[in-house]
Amino acid sequence: MKLHVNRRAATSITQQLEDGIRDWIQDHGAGGGRRLPSIRRLAATHDISRNAVIEAYERLVAAGLVRSKPGSGFYVADHATSLASRPSATHALEEVTTGMWGLFSAEEHSLKLGCGWLPSHWREGDDLTHAIRQVARKSRSGIFEYSTPQGPLDLRGLIQERLRPLAIAADAQQIVMTGGGSHSLDLLVRMLLEPGDVVFVESPGYYNLFGLLHLQRVRVIGGPRLADGPDIERLEALLAQHRPKLFFINSVFHNPTGSSITPGIAHRILQLANQYDIQIVEDDIYADFQHTPTTRLAALDGLDRVIYLGSFSKSLSSSLRVGFIAAPVAWVQRLVDIKMLTSISASRFAEQVVTTMLQNGSYRKLTERLRVKLSDQMAIALSMLKQAGWEIFNEPVGGMFVWAKPPEAISPETLSELANQWEITLSAGHLFFADHQPTPWLRLNVAYMQDARAKAFIEAAS
Amino acid sequence: MKLHVNRRAATSITQQLEDGIRDWIQDHGAGGGRRLPSIRRLAATHDISRNAVIEAYERLVAAGLVRSKPGSGFYVADHATSLASRPSATHALEEVTTGMWGLFSAEEHSLKLGCGWLPSHWREGDDLTHAIRQVARKSRSGIFEYSTPQGPLDLRGLIQERLRPLAIAADAQQIVMTGGGSHSLDLLVRMLLEPGDVVFVESPGYYNLFGLLHLQRVRVIGGPRLADGPDIERLEALLAQHRPKLFFINSVFHNPTGSSITPGIAHRILQLANQYDIQIVEDDIYADFQHTPTTRLAALDGLDRVIYLGSFSKSLSSSLRVGFIAAPVAWVQRLVDIKMLTSISASRFAEQVVTTMLQNGSYRKLTERLRVKLSDQMAIALSMLKQAGWEIFNEPVGGMFVWAKPPEAISPETLSELANQWEITLSAGHLFFADHQPTPWLRLNVAYMQDARAKAFIEAAS
Repeated sequence: MKLHVNRRAATSITQQLEDGIRDWIQDHGAGGGRRLPSIRRLAATHDISRNAVIEAYERLVAAGLVRSKPGSGFYVADHATSLASRPSATHALEEVTTGMWGLFSAEEHSLKLGCGWLPSHWREGDDLTHAIRQVARKSRSGIFEYSTPQGPLDLRGLIQERLRPLAIAADAQQIVMTGGGSHSLDLLVRMLLEPGDVVFVESPGYYNLFGLLHLQRVRVIGGPRLADGPDIERLEALLAQHRPKLFFINSVFHNPTGSSITPGIAHRILQLANQYDIQIVEDDIYADFQHTPTTRLAALDGLDRVIYLGSFSKSLSSSLRVGFIAAPVAWVQRLVDIKMLTSISASRFAEQVVTTMLQNGSYRKLTERLRVKLSDQMAIALSMLKQAGWEIFNEPVGGMFVWAKPPEAISPETLSELANQWEITLSAGHLFFADHQPTPWLRLNVAYMQDARAKAFIEAAS
Repeated sequence: MKLHVNRRAATSITQQLEDGIRDWIQDHGAGGGRRLPSIRRLAATHDISRNAVIEAYERLVAAGLVRSKPGSGFYVADHATSLASRPSATHALEEVTTGMWGLFSAEEHSLKLGCGWLPSHWREGDDLTHAIRQVARKSRSGIFEYSTPQGPLDLRGLIQERLRPLAIAADAQQIVMTGGGSHSLDLLVRMLLEPGDVVFVESPGYYNLFGLLHLQRVRVIGGPRLADGPDIERLEALLAQHRPKLFFINSVFHNPTGSSITPGIAHRILQLANQYDIQIVEDDIYADFQHTPTTRLAALDGLDRVIYLGSFSKSLSSSLRVGFIAAPVAWVQRLVDIKMLTSISASRFAEQVVTTMLQNGSYRKLTERLRVKLSDQMAIALSMLKQAGWEIFNEPVGGMFVWAKPPEAISPETLSELANQWEITLSAGHLFFADHQPTPWLRLNVAYMQDARAKAFIEAAS
């Protein structure tokens, strides 16, 4: 094995070795059990340190590509070839993120049928504008100063109140304000995971999370999501096999399927988490779209092994960047430290705007109206899809998302051409799968289905 | 060597091993050359995987505590005892951050003499409030929507214009909007550094950066900062010895010394960077406090090996969270990917407020007034300190910071008691040194020295 090592590259020697060995395994279709060069030999051949080789091998072991036999050496692992093609090196970040940000920079006139937020014209501006003007007028600290490290106590108190109907007993001291749901996930990833750790995600699931985990160089195992929550049988088998450290779950109005976990499934997940000693991150950023609260993992567990996160980005404003984490008390100080080191507090202005709207009741009223509007539109969307013969994964009772596929086999390319024809921007379905497998399923945002172009596209794709 | 390994701990086995071996070296005052247990023996004794042991040893090698002799084993490195006490494990994050956030949650009435931002009453609210109201009134997308991944093009164009007088030729395509200076540093750390990498910082320097680098598990080497920039002789010696990957430098109105690099030093730094093939991050968040532009590294280098960062937090508002990175073109896409994965864009609202103030000229006028006010107050502060007999590191021509020490030896405890007595909050001097060495030097913010309590404290400490 002769690898190409360039000392002047932006990529470290270790990374180059890791990539090189990975490529070699893939290119040679090397079967399990084949012996790899010794640490000493690789180091000598390429005139590099033994440490760099050890580290590269260790990463490949962590990625499941290579097996280490103590006292003997390193061997290609079984099924390594299929794993090798999965991008997991830093330089492959572009591959993971390809197609992810298109919706954020799509043309104004384009219909963002595949997107993860409400259209601007659905949002109600009066109360928000009013709150913004009020904070700007009344609070010098609000427009000028850094926020406090954990976030304002009054806001955390209001969030504590909002979690009560969900039966989540989080004290304000357990709540840390963040810059939105993705920022919350990032803080947790940095606090809880190290390169090489194994984590569980739902597949299909939130693709930004997959990219984030890739960035942290952890090994991601996807468990299937069904209409009532994760597939428990598969989950148990995968837990026994992979022993992950952490499980990320989007419990209510799941992205992309729109499904919510049932109480029974929630209970089973926690039993398994106890049995296999794993922590759970419950992503509940669509909570305020729900009419009647259902069972949360954090409510059953009492914030012991469950860390809960919420956001105001989907309901109120994606521009303000306000979210929160409710965590076990023992984690709070470390979370705050990481938040401060990586971004020095969230926006005090945005926090005060949200505080104002929680205090004066306008946020509650706004979400009530939004829920009615969304469930009306959900019913219309489901009926439209059924008439066109599309298969629907499950029928959500609310939220933004329907996970559906056209009645006949249709290639992603054809779908994309049809979308272009109607000036529609989609999210490519494969992004939602942890292994980016090709798929005919699409995430459709019902709030955009009022537009005549949506109906035309759905019918054309049938 | 018997280490304590707990499988149920939040900390990984590898981390526990690393910490245990580190503690053992420190506790036993183990001299260089002492042999450590073999991988196989440690793994067998503690019933853990050989891989975990290898990784722990590799980290200790990277941290300079352990030497690896190929074919022989692992040995305690020379000077390991002094390094061992330096906190570098995740669980020691609290140790690194102790005392760092006090100023962010200090009482309203306390005089924040040690702090890194302007007092609220120094800030001018009218233009900012006006811009906030304008964006709230005119822009639905501004109050509701995610920003674009790289940030709005008009804002990036305006920043391009602002960099022109500094002779920094950054095209708008090379500029990425961020959530402030610390967020910019974090994005760069994640893009450029891996655990075990060696980086250079200025010491004294920005303590949040030290904590951030600790979080990323890189090895931090501090080079002395003099009144005209880094100590070039020491820098060269340290470069030759440690071969770092990256050098972080705060070129103008340096935090905490208030000093700025001279053109000659800037030129020498770039020569050395070329010779030793390192990248430079130029932190220029105090740029807008400068009357007459001086030489920037990014101007000499043309954004080739220099990545430049700026912010609106110090001049306009710390609450809004708006900063930017100007990077070599090749890095832009990866920076955007990391930004999106970790926080999904910055605040579009805050970006539009800054855009408005750059467009209507109010930001320029505001910083002009601020500069005059700051240099007046700097002169008063320097004269006050001299009268009280304090030693001044160098006499800044502008900016917020003076780095000074009382005339007689005085313990940090006594200083802290005096500060309490006058209801003053300081930044502990040792935080500014990469190795947290005890020091009588203090960072004083001249904008707070108008308050009578500052004079009383300075005289009492003399």
